[in-house]
Amino acid sequence: MDMAEDEIKKELPKLVITDIDGVWTDGGMYYTADGDVMKKFSVRDGWGVAMLRHHGIDTVIMTGENTEIVTQRARKLRVEHCYIGVQNKLKLAQRLCEERHISLQDMAFIGDDVNDLSLLRAVGFSATPADALDYIQQEVHYVTKKQGGQGAFRELVEKILSDSGLLQSTIESLLL
Amino acid sequence: MDMAEDEIKKELPKLVITDIDGVWTDGGMYYTADGDVMKKFSVRDGWGVAMLRHHGIDTVIMTGENTEIVTQRARKLRVEHCYIGVQNKLKLAQRLCEERHISLQDMAFIGDDVNDLSLLRAVGFSATPADALDYIQQEVHYVTKKQGGQGAFRELVEKILSDSGLLQSTIESLLL
Amino acid sequence: MDMAEDEIKKELPKLVITDIDGVWTDGGMYYTADGDVMKKFSVRDGWGVAMLRHHGIDTVIMTGENTEIVTQRARKLRVEHCYIGVQNKLKLAQRLCEERHISLQDMAFIGDDVNDLSLLRAVGFSATPADALDYIQQEVHYVTKKQGGQGAFRELVEKILSDSGLLQSTIESLLL
Amino acid sequence: MDMAEDEIKKELPKLVITDIDGVWTDGGMYYTADGDVMKKFSVRDGWGVAMLRHHGIDTVIMTGENTEIVTQRARKLRVEHCYIGVQNKLKLAQRLCEERHISLQDMAFIGDDVNDLSLLRAVGFSATPADALDYIQQEVHYVTKKQGGQGAFRELVEKILSDSGLLQSTIESLLL
Repeated sequence: MDMAEDEIKKELPKLVITDIDGVWTDGGMYYTADGDVMKKFSVRDGWGVAMLRHHGIDTVIMTGENTEIVTQRARKLRVEHCYIGVQNKLKLAQRLCEERHISLQDMAFIGDDVNDLSLLRAVGFSATPADALDYIQQEVHYVTKKQGGQGAFRELVEKILSDSGLLQSTIESLLL
Repeated sequence: MDMAEDEIKKELPKLVITDIDGVWTDGGMYYTADGDVMKKFSVRDGWGVAMLRHHGIDTVIMTGENTEIVTQRARKLRVEHCYIGVQNKLKLAQRLCEERHISLQDMAFIGDDVNDLSLLRAVGFSATPADALDYIQQEVHYVTKKQGGQGAFRELVEKILSDSGLLQSTIESLLL
Repeated sequence: MDMAEDEIKKELPKLVITDIDGVWTDGGMYYTADGDVMKKFSVRDGWGVAMLRHHGIDTVIMTGENTEIVTQRARKLRVEHCYIGVQNKLKLAQRLCEERHISLQDMAFIGDDVNDLSLLRAVGFSATPADALDYIQQEVHYVTKKQGGQGAFRELVEKILSDSGLLQSTIESLLL
Repeated sequence: MDMAEDEIKKELPKLVITDIDGVWTDGGMYYTADGDVMKKFSVRDGWGVAMLRHHGIDTVIMTGENTEIVTQRARKLRVEHCYIGVQNKLKLAQRLCEERHISLQDMAFIGDDVNDLSLLRAVGFSATPADALDYIQQEVHYVTKKQGGQGAFRELVEKILSDSGLLQSTIESLLL
């Protein structure tokens, strides 16, 4: 599909922040008699991280949950900035802005629930999965067609690259 | 959405009782060679418990299954009243009424199968998930749009708060 | 729903045989580095076994897989006749006929794949889940609306009881 | 269904290569605090391997992931040629061509993502599951109706056999 000129000019975000439960997963938490032990991620979201890295854009994970499960997924995908047990995502994002000398407008963020809402309202580009609650969907710039855990994060990344006219070339550059 | 005056006047229940399998889960029971070892819960239902707590309403878990898996989920969400291995849910609810000096009419209950039916018929507000059997759906006040394990309990809580005109303020109060 | 007189007269089967993978599960086999370790069952199918037992009808499990996982699920539901590693289901069913002095016409069977086909063709009442292959669906008396793992077996049991005019009374008798 | 004469004449591929994540699974990767520990396969795909074997056609697994989980599934299905940690699938397929004195045109391949694209473009018959990304779907000969993990590979095998007029006889030959 050809794109209109003004769309092609859209700048890439300088940072993409992502929630985990309900975004990289379908919100499912697998419990045994030992407690919360497992999450199900999607291989497709891994390619989203790789596509951003190809353009020098860091993926930053922010989750309210305090679990090594997320750390393991981050390690596998070589996501260096993985924050778990985050109480206030907006505050943490503001700190990242200071450290990197960027503004909230330079950030994209995808989250799916009430503890994501303050940051969703503040960033330059906000997104939520197709199965997020209606009152979350009404407050974001982009609702992915994919549900959480089924490639919602990957779709956000491809939306961003597509808006910048960079998707096709990014795909071809990843081929061997 | 504005609400009609008579809807706004609806009183909150004094207790919300919930079944687990088929409500907080999709009814799935994960078995290994060691037996029934795992259940999948949804992060979204956890916010339902938090919203009720915000209004001083206890969530009470009642499940016929006798498993530590449920106890673990209750502990994580700080649900103090978690009854497992319950043979007769109606009888237990009646006992809670006596202890708390409330009536079954003051209770809301969400369940999905035949062992929930007696209590569903007795409480002031009864609900069941979208994927419950037809003959259960026909006996309740409210059928959630969400299926079991996909936020049916959360939806019930938001329905209750919405009917009382309290949903929007509850959400904003949970934001940081 | 009222039933026509001739439907009410339908006799109950004397035995209900069930496949496991694709019927009591969605066909999913969970593998770790140790191999095939887990299956996901549905709480709703358990009630199907209970409903048959209420009428003195045995549930018989026949699976081609050779795994303790199935044995564990059978034990939980007190299904005494659980055959794993079955090479020829028709032959085993014929042996059961001799032992119990009944005929294949007295049996109901639900299965979902090619190794079930010979027995599906032979029994008095055959069924398969909604997501079975087309060429299996075309050879059975009844295709459940539910998919494998989502209560297909329970639906078969309720269909059988409903055809005999016994469903409603069975449900009420299970209530406390 | 009768088939037109030219369809009946379609030759069987000499080798069927398959990706794993997103094809034999829904792309789900189950993580614990120990990392990526589990995948969910479908019993139905196992019959696809058996059907190809019946015609002397090898199934070859090629996955970019480096995990024993896949090796275990291959062992269970007696798939001898299972390559894990594959960086360049096209290159590996070319090596297999040399070893077996066949051409890429003699091969069928099903894959679902960017690291499959080069090989999908090169083989004689290419396929992808229903839930693959649009830009993958646009480059293959056949998009399965089934999603990854729900029998997409099995459907490909049956499509191949059906195009050669061999499906019905294959099914009957597998019956006992």
